[in-house]
Amino acid sequence: MNKIKQNSYVLFYFNNSKKWLGKISKGEELHTHIGVIRHSDAIGKEFGSRLVTNKDKYVYLLEPTIHDFIMKIHHGTQIVYPKDLGYIAARAGVESGQKIVEIGTGSGSLTSFMAGIVKPRGHVYTFDVDSQFMKIAKKNIEKAGLTKYVTMKKLDLKTAKKVPISDADLVLIDLGDPWTVLEKARKMLKGSGGVFAICPTMNQLEKFTASLVQNEFTDIECTEHIIRNIEAREGKTRHSFQGIGHTTYLAYARKAFFERSKIRKTKSK
Amino acid sequence: MNKIKQNSYVLFYFNNSKKWLGKISKGEELHTHIGVIRHSDAIGKEFGSRLVTNKDKYVYLLEPTIHDFIMKIHHGTQIVYPKDLGYIAARAGVESGQKIVEIGTGSGSLTSFMAGIVKPRGHVYTFDVDSQFMKIAKKNIEKAGLTKYVTMKKLDLKTAKKVPISDADLVLIDLGDPWTVLEKARKMLKGSGGVFAICPTMNQLEKFTASLVQNEFTDIECTEHIIRNIEAREGKTRHSFQGIGHTTYLAYARKAFFERSKIRKTKSK
Amino acid sequence: MNKIKQNSYVLFYFNNSKKWLGKISKGEELHTHIGVIRHSDAIGKEFGSRLVTNKDKYVYLLEPTIHDFIMKIHHGTQIVYPKDLGYIAARAGVESGQKIVEIGTGSGSLTSFMAGIVKPRGHVYTFDVDSQFMKIAKKNIEKAGLTKYVTMKKLDLKTAKKVPISDADLVLIDLGDPWTVLEKARKMLKGSGGVFAICPTMNQLEKFTASLVQNEFTDIECTEHIIRNIEAREGKTRHSFQGIGHTTYLAYARKAFFERSKIRKTKSK
Amino acid sequence: MNKIKQNSYVLFYFNNSKKWLGKISKGEELHTHIGVIRHSDAIGKEFGSRLVTNKDKYVYLLEPTIHDFIMKIHHGTQIVYPKDLGYIAARAGVESGQKIVEIGTGSGSLTSFMAGIVKPRGHVYTFDVDSQFMKIAKKNIEKAGLTKYVTMKKLDLKTAKKVPISDADLVLIDLGDPWTVLEKARKMLKGSGGVFAICPTMNQLEKFTASLVQNEFTDIECTEHIIRNIEAREGKTRHSFQGIGHTTYLAYARKAFFERSKIRKTKSK
Repeated sequence: MNKIKQNSYVLFYFNNSKKWLGKISKGEELHTHIGVIRHSDAIGKEFGSRLVTNKDKYVYLLEPTIHDFIMKIHHGTQIVYPKDLGYIAARAGVESGQKIVEIGTGSGSLTSFMAGIVKPRGHVYTFDVDSQFMKIAKKNIEKAGLTKYVTMKKLDLKTAKKVPISDADLVLIDLGDPWTVLEKARKMLKGSGGVFAICPTMNQLEKFTASLVQNEFTDIECTEHIIRNIEAREGKTRHSFQGIGHTTYLAYARKAFFERSKIRKTKSK
Repeated sequence: MNKIKQNSYVLFYFNNSKKWLGKISKGEELHTHIGVIRHSDAIGKEFGSRLVTNKDKYVYLLEPTIHDFIMKIHHGTQIVYPKDLGYIAARAGVESGQKIVEIGTGSGSLTSFMAGIVKPRGHVYTFDVDSQFMKIAKKNIEKAGLTKYVTMKKLDLKTAKKVPISDADLVLIDLGDPWTVLEKARKMLKGSGGVFAICPTMNQLEKFTASLVQNEFTDIECTEHIIRNIEAREGKTRHSFQGIGHTTYLAYARKAFFERSKIRKTKSK
Repeated sequence: MNKIKQNSYVLFYFNNSKKWLGKISKGEELHTHIGVIRHSDAIGKEFGSRLVTNKDKYVYLLEPTIHDFIMKIHHGTQIVYPKDLGYIAARAGVESGQKIVEIGTGSGSLTSFMAGIVKPRGHVYTFDVDSQFMKIAKKNIEKAGLTKYVTMKKLDLKTAKKVPISDADLVLIDLGDPWTVLEKARKMLKGSGGVFAICPTMNQLEKFTASLVQNEFTDIECTEHIIRNIEAREGKTRHSFQGIGHTTYLAYARKAFFERSKIRKTKSK
Repeated sequence: MNKIKQNSYVLFYFNNSKKWLGKISKGEELHTHIGVIRHSDAIGKEFGSRLVTNKDKYVYLLEPTIHDFIMKIHHGTQIVYPKDLGYIAARAGVESGQKIVEIGTGSGSLTSFMAGIVKPRGHVYTFDVDSQFMKIAKKNIEKAGLTKYVTMKKLDLKTAKKVPISDADLVLIDLGDPWTVLEKARKMLKGSGGVFAICPTMNQLEKFTASLVQNEFTDIECTEHIIRNIEAREGKTRHSFQGIGHTTYLAYARKAFFERSKIRKTKSK
């Protein structure tokens, strides 16, 4: 049985736009537009159960996943959305055990998602220059219970003389000017390792792609991911009236070696 | 150094539509439209290096990721595409260590992707009724080196009296009639655990969603994922002329308990 | 010179979400969040000129097009959006001079757009059963100055014994159950003439399409139209963060004759 | 009755990817993969009727609309697709009777579509510098029967000292460098008149938009139009597996006057 205890994180779920993430604490109450919930009423119940608020509304006690932590993150900065996170993992082939580098920690959403996958033997190394953001990210990673699998460091890779990591499986760049650190990113990657840049504008995509070519990357792919919600109801199924707008474009490539191979050509027959 | 050896899997990459997945074997040659490559020339080189074919074309020797294995899978059946795979992982919050059940093994693409994430302590249990497909899937999972983390069994969950698993974090359903196994899927899930159904048609989505409500699931979400390629080139950046069509719709929900909570309402103040 | 006069319609444009449609009347004032505009200040100015509100904001005096009338329509019902309107015209090949029938007048947006194209020698015949809607539509068509090219009639085509029109170039159906009038629609069409149904749900699309086959229509096409706004700004061009959601699906087909042609087959050589 | 005669244009329709546009000529035969059709068999039949080929396939005799002419156009150049054409008409509010200028005649598809709407009292003036293209366009406009409503002229508006038109309702620009003629376009427009540029790349969109601001245009809107085909079949309705890729982006704006209005501010009360 998957039971709720003191200090458990719970996603109080009413509907998709009304949900709250909290840490169970005996004396506390959650006050919402749909009524009041006493934390103590949740203790001992199974995850998935529901409570009734004093306004007679049902609230489900869901066990938060990494998705919920990300969507409810305290972000002083832009987050990377699940639709984009997922594609990064699937396209780069992220697996448990890998070594991942992140340049630009941001709110820690990308960090947390990756750490959840690569743990327990893999690791995420993340670098930022802004102490303020780093504090926020640290808390977010802690909440998700992933601190052990993340090394966070204040470091400006644009000016760093040496790179702190080598043989990484994947480098993630979430900076406004991702091309400025691409050479360093390359040094940290193993041969054939992947790089992903979060590029909110077409101009970044264009400039970063040019830089990928110059820095001997191959399998270059720029994509955009559109998620559309569907309301599937008997006899009246249709897409949602509410559209979901732009989040970011993504640029991907793999580290190659362009130097002319010394091996003689395969002779034709 | 990440070097290529005898028996290494290699993705021979020319461009996005011309790439071949092979297992290095000393005496072998790869014959393609862009020329011949001798496997032995690849041995000892670092992943990411390139060879020149006898037609003077460069071919990169990439280390295949789970993405490459999936895209090059020998499929006797429909595969689940990376854009959809990734969203499943991100939305359901798949993490290393989880227990995942798959109903409908298909070609093993979803199986492999999930096994790569949940390993080494998590596990994927996959059930199918078609021995032919299961053979194909088994090979595909082997190639990806994930056999250890997957238990495959011939079992018809529609008619099974007992369910073989409990407390699963996620159940994935890839059948033409996913609603027929939803009750069993529910039994295998832990409280608040997620279910995802691969629904290629709107009618499946509609019928499955109705079934989700009847079976006490909450946080129901139906989505569609569109990936658009962008050709980012200096001064002429635009979306690709080649469109990518429909693959599947996805239905997600989490196991809840609808029985009226006996706990008294929180009293209003 | 294209000058503003007493009784001219003017689109007072501040930005895309703040714009007002009004009829110039000497003594009137437009009171908005961005300040007050005196109608009399607009009189005599050229369309495209701008005025300054008492809060120092510029408001452009644009000449409303059919697009502006539609977007600012007083709708007691759903409107058909420009993206969908335009495709109907382009796919069906609507031209000046055609005879168009509309079943379900709605707010008159589709009516107005079509009338603007087919005038002065073509005509739109529109039928509805709801007097309330018809009043609204009548006003909207008047505002757009198109009354002369539209015949509006209260008529329930589902039960009508005879159809009032023949040899129409196009029949537009904007009802919840478009299949109920398809036989009548067919009777009103010339051979090879087109039919378009506004279908907000997939279920309507499915049912209507089946009906199209039964009623001997060919060149059947169901589509969905997504418009995405782009914010093109130097060095930071990207899609809009604001997504635009679902409006409707569209079903199109052309009237054919399925009876087995009596003409002998062309002999092969 | 809408009958086929000698010299009628006919769209021989088998399915959406197999259709042929021809002019009926007694002695001729149409030879296709699905068999042979004798033109003489079509004469006297009603549009919408079908013939049987010598391979026992049905071919429908549809009356071509402007849409069919455009899609079957002999293009030495890129065409503007119906999804984009339609939006231009709907957004700019194109109506019968308007005066439209086109800079860059291209294949004449945009020209023809606009001429079909503005006729009989409106007119399209189209300018190009390439005699070769102009010949092709001329033929296409002739086929569509719209020659009377189009004036085509060889003229380089980039270098022209005077503009040949004034008070246009809409100027359409289909050049690789649309910003080079924007000043001239402005001169040809009436106050509040619209301009549309066909911009296949994001870079063109960005540069043209900057130019719109400098040239005192307002209500600037950049859009992209995605059409998705839906296969609506009983019990298995879904989007088409075949995706439709990028065609062009569109930039729209209206001519305004930025000079500071001399009229005193409306006094606040």
